[in-house]
Amino acid sequence: MIIDCHGHYTTAPAALEAWRKQQIAAIGDPSKAPSRDALVISDDEIRASLEGAQLKLQRERGTDVTIFSPRAAGMAHHVGDAATSRAWSEVCNDMIHRCVSLYPKNFVGVCQLPQSPGVAPANCVAELERCVKELGFIGCNLNPDPSGGYWKDPPLTDKWWYPLYEKMVELDVPAMIHVSSSCNPNFHATGAHYINGDTTAFMQFLTSDLFKDFPTLKLIIPHGGGAVPYHWGRYRGLAQDMKRPLLKDHLLKNVFFDTCVYHQPGIDLLLKVIPVENILFASEMVGAVRGIDPETGHYYDDTKRYIDAIDWVSAEDKRKIFEGNVRRIFSRWKQ
Amino acid sequence: MIIDCHGHYTTAPAALEAWRKQQIAAIGDPSKAPSRDALVISDDEIRASLEGAQLKLQRERGTDVTIFSPRAAGMAHHVGDAATSRAWSEVCNDMIHRCVSLYPKNFVGVCQLPQSPGVAPANCVAELERCVKELGFIGCNLNPDPSGGYWKDPPLTDKWWYPLYEKMVELDVPAMIHVSSSCNPNFHATGAHYINGDTTAFMQFLTSDLFKDFPTLKLIIPHGGGAVPYHWGRYRGLAQDMKRPLLKDHLLKNVFFDTCVYHQPGIDLLLKVIPVENILFASEMVGAVRGIDPETGHYYDDTKRYIDAIDWVSAEDKRKIFEGNVRRIFSRWKQ
Repeated sequence: MIIDCHGHYTTAPAALEAWRKQQIAAIGDPSKAPSRDALVISDDEIRASLEGAQLKLQRERGTDVTIFSPRAAGMAHHVGDAATSRAWSEVCNDMIHRCVSLYPKNFVGVCQLPQSPGVAPANCVAELERCVKELGFIGCNLNPDPSGGYWKDPPLTDKWWYPLYEKMVELDVPAMIHVSSSCNPNFHATGAHYINGDTTAFMQFLTSDLFKDFPTLKLIIPHGGGAVPYHWGRYRGLAQDMKRPLLKDHLLKNVFFDTCVYHQPGIDLLLKVIPVENILFASEMVGAVRGIDPETGHYYDDTKRYIDAIDWVSAEDKRKIFEGNVRRIFSRWKQ
Repeated sequence: MIIDCHGHYTTAPAALEAWRKQQIAAIGDPSKAPSRDALVISDDEIRASLEGAQLKLQRERGTDVTIFSPRAAGMAHHVGDAATSRAWSEVCNDMIHRCVSLYPKNFVGVCQLPQSPGVAPANCVAELERCVKELGFIGCNLNPDPSGGYWKDPPLTDKWWYPLYEKMVELDVPAMIHVSSSCNPNFHATGAHYINGDTTAFMQFLTSDLFKDFPTLKLIIPHGGGAVPYHWGRYRGLAQDMKRPLLKDHLLKNVFFDTCVYHQPGIDLLLKVIPVENILFASEMVGAVRGIDPETGHYYDDTKRYIDAIDWVSAEDKRKIFEGNVRRIFSRWKQ
């Protein structure tokens, strides 16, 4: 089985975006905010939104299941306040639940959290619990910068975040560390903010003792770990200069990287540098890059091809990347 | 000849830091600010600061010349105001000039700019001109985030920066895009902020027409280009989705990457992915990572070794990386 651990519902019916626009327009006048019931989308509309996109690509590429979450850029935690974010998260997570219910063999759910800048992450515990216990979700996306590119909240290693980690550990669910859109004109979302968020989170973990406090916490850094594997020597050297343990002992029991790297040399480096146990297959489809690479004739984000093309990784190790590691990290999932 | 295009004076005598502390203490009461003449450092002290460090490493590693600039983390443009930054930049650049004067075969100067958050970069033109015309410097370091980790100024592609670019073009000097220290607790300086700055700048260039306006502007992205070469497929794909030209036509006549990547697989990827004409040898020594890699027995930042070890790059192409490209980009330098 081939499990893609990183897919977003980027193709949701237009009514979802319309609901969000109405919600944003009502900021400052909550009486005009749309109710959850005001969002009307039929099962057929959901099927149509998936059949020609994620499901078609699964079939074409030979992948089986996608661990599926709301559109990352759509989370936009910087918009409105905690109540805005809670209502929007509930609606988005319910949409994922409907996708999973319609296609239980193709999708499994991961939730968006109702984060809000300056609001304690403890505020997210209830929605995480609802999604896991009531909707059967197996993880969450955790935004390390709810301010959307201004990085105003404390680092992920601050006790500010601990109540959320406690609940994650209790529920045995991992988080993918994933920023949302950027409202800072310096940062292009998918080209800079996403990758910077990944690199930043890793370095926060490196300089902390987070995993002494949470030895069973599981965190996935997407987009191939940002800049980290490319600069693995730098990170090993920085840890050494700071008298930290070896990275494999210090971080790699808790931190994992996905394979959203969109060319062969990048995937080659990832698989050479990072232990196979720490790599989870993912494509982020339909996501940041949608075109076909003229140099290969295939979709940039068809990451399975790059892994398939490598002849110096054993079939057993590839099975870990494609399935075993994903099942180990998303351990609530029993399908 | 082997030219290291990225070295900082990280080993300056303690009197320089003491001067800076006095300057910072006087913020708010300029009458107490130290004068330029208050900094007293003898030639012998400068020699001692270099002989056991940069010069020793040059000899040991077999490199000839270092393009040398003030300590990047020390620039700290977010401290004080434009006057603070001007005085500090002058002092730091004068120190570089003294190093170069004492060891003209070993060092050539690149300046720090007196940037300040919210202050137009036009303000830096005079110091750039002084350094180039009076001190014989051949380039500058340009901080894309003078706010020190909060990214409050406009992107590098905004007209805000154009007067500085006009002067750079007129003087025929390149800039290395290099952030300084971070005062944002989310960003470790050398482990996150530096690499993020590199990635961010590249994506700003990708989404702009900066090089239509400045076809001869030359910008170096250090630290191996941040995350960019590792994610080269992502960047090619993003450019394609945005209907931008191929990156080689759109950016690679103006944007260059150094080789500050501290392990063999990273350097391998850089040289595989980026055209050889766009790669400039550098080590950043004595810099971010100072230890010896237990996996190799050599300094992490001895980047010449990684390039030497590659057998699939021709001697001619290696000469371009070690010397030819550096001379072409730093074209004022005639040594």
